Amino acid sequence: MRIIVDAMGGDYAPDVVIEGVIAAVKEYNIEVVLVGEEPRMRALLQKFKYNGNSIELRSAQEVIEMSEPAATSVRRKRDSSIVVGLDLVRDGYGDAFFSAGNTGAVVCAATLSLRTLPGIERPGIGLVLPTLKGISFIIDVGANIDPKPSQLLQYGIMADVYTSHILNKPNPTVGLLNVGEEEAKGTDFVKQTYELFEKSQLNFVGNVEGRDLFSGKCDIIVCDGFVGNVALKVSESLAETLQVFLKRYILKDPLGKLGAFLLGRSLLKFKKEIDYSEYGGAPLLGVNSVVIIGHGRSNVKAIKNAIRTAKEEVERKFNEKILEAIKIKE
Amino acid sequence: MRIIVDAMGGDYAPDVVIEGVIAAVKEYNIEVVLVGEEPRMRALLQKFKYNGNSIELRSAQEVIEMSEPAATSVRRKRDSSIVVGLDLVRDGYGDAFFSAGNTGAVVCAATLSLRTLPGIERPGIGLVLPTLKGISFIIDVGANIDPKPSQLLQYGIMADVYTSHILNKPNPTVGLLNVGEEEAKGTDFVKQTYELFEKSQLNFVGNVEGRDLFSGKCDIIVCDGFVGNVALKVSESLAETLQVFLKRYILKDPLGKLGAFLLGRSLLKFKKEIDYSEYGGAPLLGVNSVVIIGHGRSNVKAIKNAIRTAKEEVERKFNEKILEAIKIKE
Repeated sequence: MRIIVDAMGGDYAPDVVIEGVIAAVKEYNIEVVLVGEEPRMRALLQKFKYNGNSIELRSAQEVIEMSEPAATSVRRKRDSSIVVGLDLVRDGYGDAFFSAGNTGAVVCAATLSLRTLPGIERPGIGLVLPTLKGISFIIDVGANIDPKPSQLLQYGIMADVYTSHILNKPNPTVGLLNVGEEEAKGTDFVKQTYELFEKSQLNFVGNVEGRDLFSGKCDIIVCDGFVGNVALKVSESLAETLQVFLKRYILKDPLGKLGAFLLGRSLLKFKKEIDYSEYGGAPLLGVNSVVIIGHGRSNVKAIKNAIRTAKEEVERKFNEKILEAIKIKE
Repeated sequence: MRIIVDAMGGDYAPDVVIEGVIAAVKEYNIEVVLVGEEPRMRALLQKFKYNGNSIELRSAQEVIEMSEPAATSVRRKRDSSIVVGLDLVRDGYGDAFFSAGNTGAVVCAATLSLRTLPGIERPGIGLVLPTLKGISFIIDVGANIDPKPSQLLQYGIMADVYTSHILNKPNPTVGLLNVGEEEAKGTDFVKQTYELFEKSQLNFVGNVEGRDLFSGKCDIIVCDGFVGNVALKVSESLAETLQVFLKRYILKDPLGKLGAFLLGRSLLKFKKEIDYSEYGGAPLLGVNSVVIIGHGRSNVKAIKNAIRTAKEEVERKFNEKILEAIKIKE
């Protein structure tokens, strides 16, 4: 299996990406094609003392920066690591693509280059969230900010396949994100979507609320990409803010400092449980190949785990299962 | 000044509401009319040994429960504490209304009974959030889930007045909640709203993202009530989830337990900083009187602080200032 990796994507690229890729090829018995600035990639492979033959380099002279507008940059930067890498996948040279770079650009380039799966109108980004009862899967967190109800149903079906076959939770429960639990709640858009879900073959449990993202009330939460994006960024920001608040108060108090020292081990385990890097990237579901998007701040472990997710999707013939599910679950 | 209080609203009503009201009349030199089941209210005043003459009782035989559908319950339960209380305000018997009950029912009954201010199309619910740099104000967190761009602009203007005159931050910065910072981001709805804000006289700083709710990047964040409701409930739920996670790990570890004990004081101060009950309820802005909505789980302090907010809005002639601002800031 050969996974194409955008070496230039992410806040700590290319260093951290390449370190993660080296860890992944050692652990997962895969080949990787790194796409990016060749001299830099070569120097980093040397720096990290990699001398195996599972990593191939492909040159791309341009980089789409994290803050660039997606559509324009994909159109203009044809020699960027994202565009070149996805074209390699389209041409059959790779089985999957991973980038921790500009999310919008990856979605846009992947849709243009790979096209969507037959029966899927628009791709969606899913994400694994830690909850009080284990994990949940939310889709869409930003690929499609103005979807149709039929597209949300397709997200639900793809998430059902992902949760069953990649996260190993058979027959997952599916909830629709809304402002209240009663069927009559929400905008016309959400009500129409509710009807489609109710008629579907999914294990639909009805509306859920913002509080259920982390309660573990259902295995899958479906929402439009605007709401999903805001919910995700609010969560990240709040978790960081709470840490800062906590630290401020602890450092003001001498006993607090000692307490924090003694708490160290517990805090580390806690941090691990809520750490996105454990969960291996966000799959872009619905395109004609496997695409995983990493958080911009991905560290070595996050890169490695995202590549593991890509490998699992390929091995478990994830897209074939989506095609089957779309036929029977709508 | 006379404030009408729904004695039956909230998860711990009427006990906690009445305790909070007693604290408020003692501290703020106001009169309160408690609306609800008279024998219960009377018994609780005795229980809490209140024998002053600043609290009056008004009977309402019905209660709108927290989970009842808003519009139907307001139409059917004409003798509920929410409807009776708001009608007292409409009839000029009170200067403001407070309830920690069914938010949807309060919004619906207030709109029907008090009507909106001239020039305001729909009321919106604002909320003070703790941030890394102090506090911010978000509007709308759920009154209007499918607003027009013009309504969001009105929310921005009302929030500007609230932040200047109640939160004492003159010329506050205003951001529009979106999925990215660039002007071209977002749905057509958000782009149209952006244009209105840009043309307005507000101190508009452009789009902000979910992460800016708690970063303190701007003083006011404007969004539709669907997104605001989800963002708020996600935040509450995440804060609780993180506490549970932390506790789990701490309790597994003997040194962690000692650490937590030593950390106690810092944790208490921390909890106070992020505690919604410090911030005194959520104002329903845009109706023809002062209406404050409390969190369902309001404790005594939250009730007391919400009544303080109501008093401040009345004293500072908040609605008159909105009427002036609407004329010049659009």
